[in-house]
Amino acid sequence: MYKYGGYAGKYLRVDLSSGNIRVEETPLELVHEYLGGSGIGARLLWNEVKPGTDPLSPQNKIIIATGPLTGTLFPPSGRYAVISLSPLTDHWGEAHAGGAFGPELKYAGYDYIIIEGKAEKPVYLNIEDNLIELRDASHLWGKNTIHATDLICEQLGDIDVKVACIGPAGENLVKYACIINDYYRAAGRTGMGAVFGSKKLKAIAVRGSGGLKPALPEEFIKFSQECFERHSSGEWADYIKKTSRTYGTTGLMDAMNAIGRLPTKNHYDGYYPEIDKVGSEAIRKHFRVDHKSCFGCAIQCKYISRIKEGKYANTQSEGPEYETVMAYTSNMLVSDLTVAMRANYLCNIYGMDTISSGASIAFAMECYEKGIINKSDTDGLELKWGDGEVALKLVEMIANREGFGDLLAEGVYEAAKRIGKGSDSYAIEVNRLEASGQDGRSHKSAGLTYAINVRGADHLRSLCIIDELGFTNKAKERFPQYDTDIVCDLLNERYKGYMVADQEAIFAVCDSLIACKYGVMWPPIYYWEDYAHLIHVLTGIDDYADIEETKRLGERISHLRRMFNIRLGWSKKNDSLHPRFTKEPMPSGPGKGQVVNLEPMLKEYYEVRGYDWKTGYPTRSSLERVGIGDVADELEKMNKLAKD
Amino acid sequence: MYKYGGYAGKYLRVDLSSGNIRVEETPLELVHEYLGGSGIGARLLWNEVKPGTDPLSPQNKIIIATGPLTGTLFPPSGRYAVISLSPLTDHWGEAHAGGAFGPELKYAGYDYIIIEGKAEKPVYLNIEDNLIELRDASHLWGKNTIHATDLICEQLGDIDVKVACIGPAGENLVKYACIINDYYRAAGRTGMGAVFGSKKLKAIAVRGSGGLKPALPEEFIKFSQECFERHSSGEWADYIKKTSRTYGTTGLMDAMNAIGRLPTKNHYDGYYPEIDKVGSEAIRKHFRVDHKSCFGCAIQCKYISRIKEGKYANTQSEGPEYETVMAYTSNMLVSDLTVAMRANYLCNIYGMDTISSGASIAFAMECYEKGIINKSDTDGLELKWGDGEVALKLVEMIANREGFGDLLAEGVYEAAKRIGKGSDSYAIEVNRLEASGQDGRSHKSAGLTYAINVRGADHLRSLCIIDELGFTNKAKERFPQYDTDIVCDLLNERYKGYMVADQEAIFAVCDSLIACKYGVMWPPIYYWEDYAHLIHVLTGIDDYADIEETKRLGERISHLRRMFNIRLGWSKKNDSLHPRFTKEPMPSGPGKGQVVNLEPMLKEYYEVRGYDWKTGYPTRSSLERVGIGDVADELEKMNKLAKD
Repeated sequence: MYKYGGYAGKYLRVDLSSGNIRVEETPLELVHEYLGGSGIGARLLWNEVKPGTDPLSPQNKIIIATGPLTGTLFPPSGRYAVISLSPLTDHWGEAHAGGAFGPELKYAGYDYIIIEGKAEKPVYLNIEDNLIELRDASHLWGKNTIHATDLICEQLGDIDVKVACIGPAGENLVKYACIINDYYRAAGRTGMGAVFGSKKLKAIAVRGSGGLKPALPEEFIKFSQECFERHSSGEWADYIKKTSRTYGTTGLMDAMNAIGRLPTKNHYDGYYPEIDKVGSEAIRKHFRVDHKSCFGCAIQCKYISRIKEGKYANTQSEGPEYETVMAYTSNMLVSDLTVAMRANYLCNIYGMDTISSGASIAFAMECYEKGIINKSDTDGLELKWGDGEVALKLVEMIANREGFGDLLAEGVYEAAKRIGKGSDSYAIEVNRLEASGQDGRSHKSAGLTYAINVRGADHLRSLCIIDELGFTNKAKERFPQYDTDIVCDLLNERYKGYMVADQEAIFAVCDSLIACKYGVMWPPIYYWEDYAHLIHVLTGIDDYADIEETKRLGERISHLRRMFNIRLGWSKKNDSLHPRFTKEPMPSGPGKGQVVNLEPMLKEYYEVRGYDWKTGYPTRSSLERVGIGDVADELEKMNKLAKD
Repeated sequence: MYKYGGYAGKYLRVDLSSGNIRVEETPLELVHEYLGGSGIGARLLWNEVKPGTDPLSPQNKIIIATGPLTGTLFPPSGRYAVISLSPLTDHWGEAHAGGAFGPELKYAGYDYIIIEGKAEKPVYLNIEDNLIELRDASHLWGKNTIHATDLICEQLGDIDVKVACIGPAGENLVKYACIINDYYRAAGRTGMGAVFGSKKLKAIAVRGSGGLKPALPEEFIKFSQECFERHSSGEWADYIKKTSRTYGTTGLMDAMNAIGRLPTKNHYDGYYPEIDKVGSEAIRKHFRVDHKSCFGCAIQCKYISRIKEGKYANTQSEGPEYETVMAYTSNMLVSDLTVAMRANYLCNIYGMDTISSGASIAFAMECYEKGIINKSDTDGLELKWGDGEVALKLVEMIANREGFGDLLAEGVYEAAKRIGKGSDSYAIEVNRLEASGQDGRSHKSAGLTYAINVRGADHLRSLCIIDELGFTNKAKERFPQYDTDIVCDLLNERYKGYMVADQEAIFAVCDSLIACKYGVMWPPIYYWEDYAHLIHVLTGIDDYADIEETKRLGERISHLRRMFNIRLGWSKKNDSLHPRFTKEPMPSGPGKGQVVNLEPMLKEYYEVRGYDWKTGYPTRSSLERVGIGDVADELEKMNKLAKD
């Protein structure tokens, strides 16, 4: 029996080069200090992946991690994390996915898996409780994710096997290839699928028959029920039913357009006039055909879509989510939702991030418009704004690295570098990650979030919008010393550094537990007191009964992930944004005329974190305060420690 | 509040000719005497569909009926019945289906619907609680069942609408067209879809928000839980899990082959040597990709299949069930399961019975083999045994009534009549219904069942096999006066008339309640004492607390359905079998050398029912004993009553 509740108690280390597999006890101090998921991933990556490692070499490692919450009856608990050195950004790589793969790994008896080395020929890792084996995957190589999953289940003789696998995009080392589990759930960003591909690891298949125990069962069940009720019968239940359960994340299409931050025309604008054609109601009405849910979820934001008529009739998939719809409609001026549905399906079966692939295509369209590239570069394709057919053609070319697709498969940062001619003006990335569906110009805190995010331009390491939009009055409680009107003003930079830092730490805990952010963010929102209580009753770690200690946990993880990047060369200059956000005023919509004024927000953020304004490096005390003095020691040797 | 528990309390009468819709209270005496489903269907058809009615004319009526059990928490309770004068058999037509359509109709507030007349142009009936309307279906005409269902849900703005609809086969009046609800569940036999088509009724869409109350809630819940446990945790649970939940009805492929009654080569044989290629394990291993379940079921025999590779890759559907696999593999000597998977999908989307369509194709193959038809008759197709491609081509030709398919769309009885040349020797039907997946030669009681079944050659109006195979010792309890070894001997005709009559009455109750037969038959089996208790605690009708009264109910329904046929001209001569079963000894397998010796079984059956041996007509006392003296009166006027 493991000391802490919610854990399976063991982990796997799989060396693909030698074929060695070791089962070890999950280190208590790792759990105590980092909880799980993103947290233990940060510590393991810090410990084991050193500067100078090529992300696609055998020396890189990839960690598949659950958290103590994964697979428990806490309603949104079906998630797992993948952490590695990213081949897309060359820095911190992390992606999460829902479904049932994560719970199954826990039931098999493992909290996480460390995968290292490189197999000689394609393999997949099969885990059935105590049976752990590497199996030949030659027959699976080249197969799309649905087909590969089917074939693995068939070979193992059990359709209830949970499979996480890569598709052709991962095999072809598309830099933003993803891992697909449970057929449709994607660990999407930072190219984790390419790391699998580089290691010739086609898939992980898991079947587990064990169980999990919380430390304080009665309290944990009580709190889980309370959480379930918050979503299913509490004061917000009706609202959640009418929004999340009816529209899922696609509800954000309309909401984000309404506040002027729906990326439009390669992030040129934040307002899309044709929203009615591509908004959530159009999706629900014309494409949604069934409900779905991740493991044990009370919200059930997932759905199945089907293209009913025309050339792509009968294309069926889970989703698409907001980010996919944004990427393949407004952001490339495509007003036909069929394109987003088909792109979603293609990206799922090829195993490719929809955000980065869509952004790469939008980048190419803008380069084409500006005359930087022409038909001779694009295999004769006319890359016109709004041409969905050409976008779908490019999706396949990217996944297969055919012709011009081979260039776009590198991501916009690298593609712009190779194209030159000022094309980087249209490569909308931050720290090499293509921008997701936000825009800091009309939502200032999102600007800061992009700039300081360890994995680049995305919204999932800090997002304050629920407070800012006034869904809760938590902003007031959290920042009583500040004027709530200013705190909640989307267009005001003031106090945003404090909020973003606080939220980043919350999300770090969330990503370590692992709780679904859509589940815990949506009103009624969860805050420090909830997490402290949850961690305490679940794990039995007494420290986290204390809110301040729980905050320190979030800060520790936030710091350590950044330090991983700092050690690789990250510094103040990385805490920046693409000029589109800082220099080009928003052309229309509620954010019209706005740019991101990063400096004041960044100052506040640095102040909270204890980073040096000139270098972006931490002070020793800021790291020691959260218990990672050893990290300070190592950075000091590299001259990457600021003076206290 | 309706007097009896389990009922919605209202029914609908929809006249498609005038567009009139009436909501009426469900007659108490109808419920009291006939319970629901097949029972009330029998009374309504007797009362309202008179001799001389053309099944495809506006004068025919079609009844969509639930039972008191439908939509309750009793585990297998997701079914509804469709009853009409059959265009395939010209006699009693009845088909049932699972899914969630039936429960939804109850929740909307209706126990059944009587549909009469004929619409001028295609319509669909939309029911949302008290809103009942006929809507234009011109845009749906010609659409397959999946597409039509999608479009109706889209038009109504709610994917949770439950839709029962017809496909092109029903529109084209294919005589064995079916009704498909919940995308994949088929009310399959006797051409109920053609009746919809003849009335220009494309679909019924239902959404209900009401509830149901049993008369004695505590007792009902207790008994339902007990039933749930019989399937999920009782002594049979493990067995059910390893059979029904793992293989569904396809487990019958192997089981039926093992006892020598798996129809092979158009019912020529009962043993298929290539069973391993088409048996349940092959289906599970190569095609099953997900679990499914009808409304609230504890068995969950349903599954989703997908063709993973080859020409038909990505063909996905629910099922196929045993009967479909039999019809499209062994019975046409096709050893490639892909054909059954594809045929299942095609029959689902076209809305066509898989048993009758498969049998029609097998009939054509045998006629072709015997030189009765040749390429000049078949649009150039070579109809060779085992040619799955040609079978799939024929499925489409039948549904669309193209060329030779137009003839096969009439069913084998009519096709043989038109072809002549002794082709009726290969038209394996009984009373014009194509034989399903049984063979009386190696399972004698099944021979009698086919012969006396009011809807023709099928197994769902009486099936004793669970007892006969010794899964229970109920046979001994039920027939203590007879030698159990003989009762349970599949190849012995003795006592089978008594067993079949008893089981027919049980199934009549089952089909009126409506309970899923697969649910209540599978060990541990339900008998009279269970039904009596169930009906009593559910409805509160005190009569049925009494077992004898419950038996009388089953007999009443059995009698009345037959009397409906008698009034149409049915007589002793109809209680017969195709010569293949009575004159051609089984060529191989456990039943080798056997034929059905019908006479002794029929004599016993007549004895129980009180039918005259010469005419097959009932005596007055046999009808009066079960409370349908008025039926005797009417038959007497027609000279169709035997002397007591």
